[in-house]
Amino acid sequence: GSPLALIAGPCVMEDEELTLAIARQLLEVKRELGIGVVFKASFDKANRTSVTSFRGPGMEKGLAILDTVRRQTGLPILSDVHDVAQVEAAARVLDILQIPAFLCRQTDLLLAAGNSGKVVNIKKGQFLAPWDMANAVAKVVSTGNERILLTERGTTFGYNNLVVDMRALAIMRETGCPVVFDATHAVQLPGGSGTSSGGQRQFVAALSRAAVAMGIDGLFWEVHPQPEKALCDGANSLPLAQIKAILREILAIDAIVKGRVSP
Amino acid sequence: GSPLALIAGPCVMEDEELTLAIARQLLEVKRELGIGVVFKASFDKANRTSVTSFRGPGMEKGLAILDTVRRQTGLPILSDVHDVAQVEAAARVLDILQIPAFLCRQTDLLLAAGNSGKVVNIKKGQFLAPWDMANAVAKVVSTGNERILLTERGTTFGYNNLVVDMRALAIMRETGCPVVFDATHAVQLPGGSGTSSGGQRQFVAALSRAAVAMGIDGLFWEVHPQPEKALCDGANSLPLAQIKAILREILAIDAIVKGRVSP
Amino acid sequence: GSPLALIAGPCVMEDEELTLAIARQLLEVKRELGIGVVFKASFDKANRTSVTSFRGPGMEKGLAILDTVRRQTGLPILSDVHDVAQVEAAARVLDILQIPAFLCRQTDLLLAAGNSGKVVNIKKGQFLAPWDMANAVAKVVSTGNERILLTERGTTFGYNNLVVDMRALAIMRETGCPVVFDATHAVQLPGGSGTSSGGQRQFVAALSRAAVAMGIDGLFWEVHPQPEKALCDGANSLPLAQIKAILREILAIDAIVKGRVSP
Amino acid sequence: GSPLALIAGPCVMEDEELTLAIARQLLEVKRELGIGVVFKASFDKANRTSVTSFRGPGMEKGLAILDTVRRQTGLPILSDVHDVAQVEAAARVLDILQIPAFLCRQTDLLLAAGNSGKVVNIKKGQFLAPWDMANAVAKVVSTGNERILLTERGTTFGYNNLVVDMRALAIMRETGCPVVFDATHAVQLPGGSGTSSGGQRQFVAALSRAAVAMGIDGLFWEVHPQPEKALCDGANSLPLAQIKAILREILAIDAIVKGRVSP
Repeated sequence: GSPLALIAGPCVMEDEELTLAIARQLLEVKRELGIGVVFKASFDKANRTSVTSFRGPGMEKGLAILDTVRRQTGLPILSDVHDVAQVEAAARVLDILQIPAFLCRQTDLLLAAGNSGKVVNIKKGQFLAPWDMANAVAKVVSTGNERILLTERGTTFGYNNLVVDMRALAIMRETGCPVVFDATHAVQLPGGSGTSSGGQRQFVAALSRAAVAMGIDGLFWEVHPQPEKALCDGANSLPLAQIKAILREILAIDAIVKGRVSP
Repeated sequence: GSPLALIAGPCVMEDEELTLAIARQLLEVKRELGIGVVFKASFDKANRTSVTSFRGPGMEKGLAILDTVRRQTGLPILSDVHDVAQVEAAARVLDILQIPAFLCRQTDLLLAAGNSGKVVNIKKGQFLAPWDMANAVAKVVSTGNERILLTERGTTFGYNNLVVDMRALAIMRETGCPVVFDATHAVQLPGGSGTSSGGQRQFVAALSRAAVAMGIDGLFWEVHPQPEKALCDGANSLPLAQIKAILREILAIDAIVKGRVSP
Repeated sequence: GSPLALIAGPCVMEDEELTLAIARQLLEVKRELGIGVVFKASFDKANRTSVTSFRGPGMEKGLAILDTVRRQTGLPILSDVHDVAQVEAAARVLDILQIPAFLCRQTDLLLAAGNSGKVVNIKKGQFLAPWDMANAVAKVVSTGNERILLTERGTTFGYNNLVVDMRALAIMRETGCPVVFDATHAVQLPGGSGTSSGGQRQFVAALSRAAVAMGIDGLFWEVHPQPEKALCDGANSLPLAQIKAILREILAIDAIVKGRVSP
Repeated sequence: GSPLALIAGPCVMEDEELTLAIARQLLEVKRELGIGVVFKASFDKANRTSVTSFRGPGMEKGLAILDTVRRQTGLPILSDVHDVAQVEAAARVLDILQIPAFLCRQTDLLLAAGNSGKVVNIKKGQFLAPWDMANAVAKVVSTGNERILLTERGTTFGYNNLVVDMRALAIMRETGCPVVFDATHAVQLPGGSGTSSGGQRQFVAALSRAAVAMGIDGLFWEVHPQPEKALCDGANSLPLAQIKAILREILAIDAIVKGRVSP
């Protein structure tokens, strides 16, 4: 397998300055550790728990910020689309179009994303068996686009809780698509705080190590300079200052699992 | 509580003739049993398991058929919307706009449905705790529209299976909204047949009786004259010829539970 | 089907006087409603959450109390056995030997209970699929004893929660054994109060109605004159004073479902 | 943390010769890799799915074989006890008494095991939240015995399936007890083959790597020279010939996670 890549960034763009600051820190991580880094940020959180939650700058303004990030850092950019109507504009700026987990069975959205020609990252629905992602892949492949990533972000486990079934990482790899583990959403407690989702940041590093030890292609982390002040998903975001140390350990595990160092 | 109502119809409109034939049979059920009946049919199954599944006539043609059904039978009409862009046209024909379970957290869709002024039927996501439907209700209520139904259709229970937690029916009633039990989707086995969902029709009548014994406001059934020939969800649809007998038993239970007959 | 029977009594015997008082009230229910009633009480709660929980009077004293109950009321008696060593003594007093849910796969216990010649009530493990109870039945049947009841008491659903899959009632009936629904344990929240299990008494009556509407042979309820003062499982026990009213409704539903009244 | 230890052996003792052959191979693994190895084998599988399944040589003969293993190899010995009556005899031979998962709430068994003075390995019930193992630990600690291991072997996840919630490994470590991951039982499909449990051996190595990457104290594996011929749990047992290679990788990960090599 090829070395692990990192998809990282804030949950939602709060403003241009902060977004750029985070991207520059990720660029430094990329250079120092020599790994692939994709910048991710959402322009619109279309499915927040509560109607009063912060949703982001909207598509137009958000894409403009992401375009600036790409030009200033050279990092490839990932963001999510929720609607067929967003795909065309998004594809002009983004390198990777992401299908949110709740929408992973929406045929038209998958087809539109596939037709854009961009890489498509499909998050596995919390309600879906890992082998059933083959149907989502087939929808995108039917457009002639085979550049597909599959991302695990936890499975419904009783109420207000998710569980990561690590077998899913291996099962989804049988599609031939690279598999990503979204460790920060996997530790969400959906709806667990009444009008917002809670989170268990304390498990992000360990679950990331575990997923990498299974053998995966990428990690997906929401990061923030001060998660406790984040306008979205702060409870499960990683503090930017910690990620280099966590990644060093993870990359050492990745090298063992992929046979680049002999154990 | 007021007497039980029935929401029923085919999974998807196959053609106008069949759709009308089903509606006329439901009208007869309504007259004979003296219960409220809403006609349901989808114009587009936007989230079928496989890209090659039959999706329906599309919105324009589908709404035209539903308009004919309403004019010819006088039954109120329910169908589902998947996209903000569909809401306006749909609201011109439909009495009840239904939010599919996978989309029950899509804020914009809930707001658009609320703003239409029509009754909004929100299906509880397979990934959601029943108490968290209060957040979906609040999104619609924020538009000033309080005509909301909540529908249970099963909860993710391991892989390729759903379980009906009957407590959810009581918990959702605490929102003050009428609660509906969708018995035919609750017995789906999602993805359970590889490229389509399986179903367990044999449990529909008994689970419907059980839900009514809990105390609910409506039942939701997909029905078909010949389920084995249906182009969608045949494995869990009820044969039209059987529904009158099943309903008689159910209405007797409803009368006991709601205190209209003394036990 | 034959009319519904009731298995009821306190979780654990607290003292002889209270045990007898409860039994006499159940005898009155039996006479007034004309239904079969089995008295249940445990002599030893061998698997309480915490080591400091009240466990009961022990086998010898407990069986003596149960013998008194039987002689004074004429009610058949059910209690649970946890160990092969208890079976012989228990079978001398009891009419029905109950296998606790956690122990439903303990082969020796099932064989010993079967060999006693008494009726054996096997509770379905919280970890077991309903169709797998056929293996537990086969273990008892291998002793030549076919007098077996199967009881549903909820299935593990995430952490600290149980769900009742009503389909299980129908599936277990395919073994040919009468099926009982244990409504008071089904609403337990295992470990949900730290060092004891919580409970949701508010759902007992409605879930009992629902199970009876599915079509079952018996209900199992823990009852207490003052549940809030019970030494065990008070949070999910039914107040004795309420059970007659709840049963009247339930028996009316049972009559409809079993075709004794035409709907 | 101290380096990883391995608990390994056949599911059940088939005969003395095979048992000794396996133990000698494990002794060689211990010497070659320099890790702690505990030999495990059951003398009686008391909870097999079917009454006709092979159960083992029984306690007396089984303990005699295990005593021979200990004398010939010097390996510490672990086996499971199902009944208070077995504890005294078992404690004369064994170094570690194991409480089966289904029995982890049986107070008397935990107290008897604690009173034996031996190390007690409690398997977490498939129905239990990881934090609730604190109650099981407290039962053993109440005897004055604090030499306790906790073992994760999967949690009920729908029907006929288990999921490993890797968070449980971290949560159980908060008790202060060493935590073991039983990778071969975690991949069982309980009851999944009708009259026996199926298994997914293909995930054992990867899940073991993942658990070690979380940070644990021991691995538990059922091994066999020819799993396809094993009389118990062959579908999930590891072939003896493979374990050295798998362990080398795992020990390299363990060294990184526990900081013995800098990443």
